[in-house]
Amino acid sequence: MREQLYEGKAKRIYRTDDEHVVLVEYKDSATAFNGEKKAEITGKGRLNNEITSLLFLMLKEKGIESHFIKRISETEQLVKKVKIIPLEVVVRNVTAGTLAKRLGIEEGRELSTPIVEFYFKNDELGDPLFTVDHILEMKLASSEELNTLRQKGLEINQVLTSYFSELGIRLIDFKLEFGKDETGAILLADEISPDTCRLWDSVTNEKLDKDIFRRDLGSLTEGYETILKRLGGHQNV
Amino acid sequence: MREQLYEGKAKRIYRTDDEHVVLVEYKDSATAFNGEKKAEITGKGRLNNEITSLLFLMLKEKGIESHFIKRISETEQLVKKVKIIPLEVVVRNVTAGTLAKRLGIEEGRELSTPIVEFYFKNDELGDPLFTVDHILEMKLASSEELNTLRQKGLEINQVLTSYFSELGIRLIDFKLEFGKDETGAILLADEISPDTCRLWDSVTNEKLDKDIFRRDLGSLTEGYETILKRLGGHQNV
Repeated sequence: MREQLYEGKAKRIYRTDDEHVVLVEYKDSATAFNGEKKAEITGKGRLNNEITSLLFLMLKEKGIESHFIKRISETEQLVKKVKIIPLEVVVRNVTAGTLAKRLGIEEGRELSTPIVEFYFKNDELGDPLFTVDHILEMKLASSEELNTLRQKGLEINQVLTSYFSELGIRLIDFKLEFGKDETGAILLADEISPDTCRLWDSVTNEKLDKDIFRRDLGSLTEGYETILKRLGGHQNV
Repeated sequence: MREQLYEGKAKRIYRTDDEHVVLVEYKDSATAFNGEKKAEITGKGRLNNEITSLLFLMLKEKGIESHFIKRISETEQLVKKVKIIPLEVVVRNVTAGTLAKRLGIEEGRELSTPIVEFYFKNDELGDPLFTVDHILEMKLASSEELNTLRQKGLEINQVLTSYFSELGIRLIDFKLEFGKDETGAILLADEISPDTCRLWDSVTNEKLDKDIFRRDLGSLTEGYETILKRLGGHQNV
């Protein structure tokens, strides 16, 4: 029997025989608003596992390393074991969601330059926005590490934006998580999927991401299938 | 009859004969929680006018210029006309209020180093916390100006903390506003009073500031009178 190390809202992490490798299982659970809204959506785990795998492979080809090793089943992948830095690194190209609210600007306005935000990963506190000062006070990362996270975020944004653009998709914003491996190196981790990105059709601006669930806009799996199809999935295991 | 240029929650601004000078009248109104809680408290305007005047004079002696010219009556002072930068510059030495909530730390814990925060002055949006990226996107200040605001905030914090400390008062945190004069120079503006500072008695930790009103802790004017008395007031006009 597999030993579970952790269960999050959308994934379970299991130990493997290799102490430097863990198995990630993508669940069919959808949650929003800090867990207030919940549903089971058949196929979501498979879609996010496939999409994340394709994106991590693409990023690797572009020289951006991540914790990803390989997809091993419809809903599972192997990744390097890292210690997650408890910050959500959010990169934004267009106003949407909490940024639109914070700035008092309607959704869909192109930003003059991408914005990077850090949120403290803490369900109890509701994942609050943190400034650099807050992060340093809480010792979540050093000043140098924050610069690295910011630079990596912007670099990944460039690659993803251009990649999605060729597929007729606007990358509005997305959330990254990073971890440290056993050498202390900072590695892109977690997932990159329609759960963690806002992705709009370039022509129609139709939402193809978790906002479908958050805002009851229709079938979530249809949106996610559209993304997977444009990415060239279904990928063979 | 005086021409009113602006009315805020705690002050009214009037034109004077000199186009570079305006008259500030401190009102007896107390408000909290973005105007949700309101009261008229006799004497509050006089106390804040006196306290602000004393503090701006003290800061000037220490080499920190402000818009303050002179106090001209119990509730009025003359100040240089400046264009207010729509940012609240909050400097914090000890966890309290929204910082304690954001970090998930109890009130009263000494920070390892002072924290500077910027809030967008916008009642409709509830004065949201802004990062540097947000401020630059909204063109509220340049990157260089933000560094200036931060440095001035920290410098004023040093002077105020040491000054209050000698009077048996802990400066927990405070809010500053800055404006630009006709030459574009950035000048400390607005007020520095128990409305804009958290001030605790050094021995008893008794709150001597607007939290008395926010949290219904007793007589606001008693707290403010204590501050004024320790500052050496009542100042003669």
